[in-house]
Amino acid sequence: MRAATFHGPGDIRIEDRPRPELEAPTDAIVRVTHTAVCGSDLWFYRGESDREVGSPVGHEPMGVVEDVGDDVRSVEPGDRVLAPFRISCGYCEFCRKGLHTSCVNGDGWGGENGGGQGEYVRSTHADGTLVRVPDRHADDEDTLRALLPLTDVMGTGHHAAVSAGVEAGSTCVVVGDGAVGLCAVLAARRLGAERIVAVGHHEDRLAVAEEFGATETVAARGDDAIERVRELTYGGANHVVECVGASSSMNAAVAMARPGGTVGYVGVPHGVDDLDLYGMFGDNVALRGGVAPVRAYAEDLMADVLGGTLDPSPIFTHTVDLDGVPEGYRLMDDREAIKVLVKP
Amino acid sequence: MRAATFHGPGDIRIEDRPRPELEAPTDAIVRVTHTAVCGSDLWFYRGESDREVGSPVGHEPMGVVEDVGDDVRSVEPGDRVLAPFRISCGYCEFCRKGLHTSCVNGDGWGGENGGGQGEYVRSTHADGTLVRVPDRHADDEDTLRALLPLTDVMGTGHHAAVSAGVEAGSTCVVVGDGAVGLCAVLAARRLGAERIVAVGHHEDRLAVAEEFGATETVAARGDDAIERVRELTYGGANHVVECVGASSSMNAAVAMARPGGTVGYVGVPHGVDDLDLYGMFGDNVALRGGVAPVRAYAEDLMADVLGGTLDPSPIFTHTVDLDGVPEGYRLMDDREAIKVLVKP
Repeated sequence: MRAATFHGPGDIRIEDRPRPELEAPTDAIVRVTHTAVCGSDLWFYRGESDREVGSPVGHEPMGVVEDVGDDVRSVEPGDRVLAPFRISCGYCEFCRKGLHTSCVNGDGWGGENGGGQGEYVRSTHADGTLVRVPDRHADDEDTLRALLPLTDVMGTGHHAAVSAGVEAGSTCVVVGDGAVGLCAVLAARRLGAERIVAVGHHEDRLAVAEEFGATETVAARGDDAIERVRELTYGGANHVVECVGASSSMNAAVAMARPGGTVGYVGVPHGVDDLDLYGMFGDNVALRGGVAPVRAYAEDLMADVLGGTLDPSPIFTHTVDLDGVPEGYRLMDDREAIKVLVKP
Repeated sequence: MRAATFHGPGDIRIEDRPRPELEAPTDAIVRVTHTAVCGSDLWFYRGESDREVGSPVGHEPMGVVEDVGDDVRSVEPGDRVLAPFRISCGYCEFCRKGLHTSCVNGDGWGGENGGGQGEYVRSTHADGTLVRVPDRHADDEDTLRALLPLTDVMGTGHHAAVSAGVEAGSTCVVVGDGAVGLCAVLAARRLGAERIVAVGHHEDRLAVAEEFGATETVAARGDDAIERVRELTYGGANHVVECVGASSSMNAAVAMARPGGTVGYVGVPHGVDDLDLYGMFGDNVALRGGVAPVRAYAEDLMADVLGGTLDPSPIFTHTVDLDGVPEGYRLMDDREAIKVLVKP
């Protein structure tokens, strides 16, 4: 099969690789029809994190089940499915409590499972991992584009809003105008937030934020952004959602929180070595969140997508085929695309 | 009046100072009968934080009201009162929500208000700050010794346990065997924790922890302590209470938390520049807490003390008069005393 692989910073290639095969009776093979390039893929692309040369990339697969092991009960060949960015068993302590990212039997995409950006993947623990799309929606392209973000960014934005404690009537600040930040705006609106202040520095993306439900936007950085948010919220918001993971954005989020408030964070911390813990301490600002258990949220979010009340698909500003994946990385890296959809 | 003052690291003196006077109609003057030396006083004592030379010290006053301004409604001369380590108005947004440490009219001990370790203090915002002890208990020495920790360490330990989400049936780990850690054990027991693992490295203090309700103790440091706690809790506790504020103890607390768990922290962060944020992120371990709004907890905790179900007084291993305050600092600094009670 053909799949995107990593060969060094800036060097993504499409190569022939062995097609993943069933090994355990709980495995399923999925032919990937839709997938995406993720902001987190840019770390190895930029050389900011290590990755094995020759390894397959991608972690947001959606497709059609090709084959299943004897013990798989929840899906059958021909079913349309999507899969979160982590594989989870569905029955351990942490899966039962909705923290699938801490699954004690957890597994990931890549290696012999295949990367999401390829023609086929193997899902180990298929019953705990794959989310079946109801047949009546399984071939509607618009629906599939709206469901694809449930593999990662929509669930991640939702986790951020949930972690920040957003609820009906809340005033909420969202830091970051990438795909996750925009999805967090959608999530905050879905949870009933009354005011949603989106903070970023790309006018075009903040326009999407407004389309998604942001009631105010702040196009600024650093102290200017903090000052403007504190003005708008009369001293900070009780719920701040951090969707970047950089030092500056984490500390901005803390500074935008009202005393006693909560920062929900889902941006993987990247070089955050100066978190303003003393400021958090003095103001009793809590920090909650982490890698998002998007599997826990998939059914609820899917119900809303299928019901027509949730549509994150505008984050896909560009669509490529498998050969276009390297260009997709470039578009994301150059911030020309918010998020690139891939159709292998 | 006579009061303890700071003259440089290791140099606490008893000096004559002007007695605080009523200035605002919301002020009260309190003759201090009981107060204490706090672990946080050791920072300036050790030269680890700055403090103005000649400034009066102490922030845990209990005593008898001497005089009140015209607008004070809640106390009268002759009333026995205790006061939290921060002065708060009682009516601003943050006082109303129980976050008195973020009071927008907040004030502190020291300066012209007098330090807690002196003969008199002035409480500004007396109605929002002073907690009146019912007359029938106002002169019982054992009761007063048990109430004095409500000025700081008992409320702080309670805030840690509350912030960590401890509730009936919880398994809870308490990191730190100082006065706050021991009070956190009491607080966890009071909140109904089923298992309380106290972690420290002083056998005598861990013996007090057991007396206070710890079901297990771990006398170890660093990785040994983490490993032992993870064994005892089968992979970490959902509720970890951090009562030190050092880098090592914060990261130990994070490592002792179960995925999805919460670290409640009240140790003022001191040189914490390597918080394991990446570990927190991966395991969705939340960090909640901060400087404790002990005023918010005073009535509830006092009711239990007066009812005989809460007694933190064993933390007072030594008692001194005002002239003994310098020796009290030495006893705390050398870890000979858990906490020193001062009777001016």
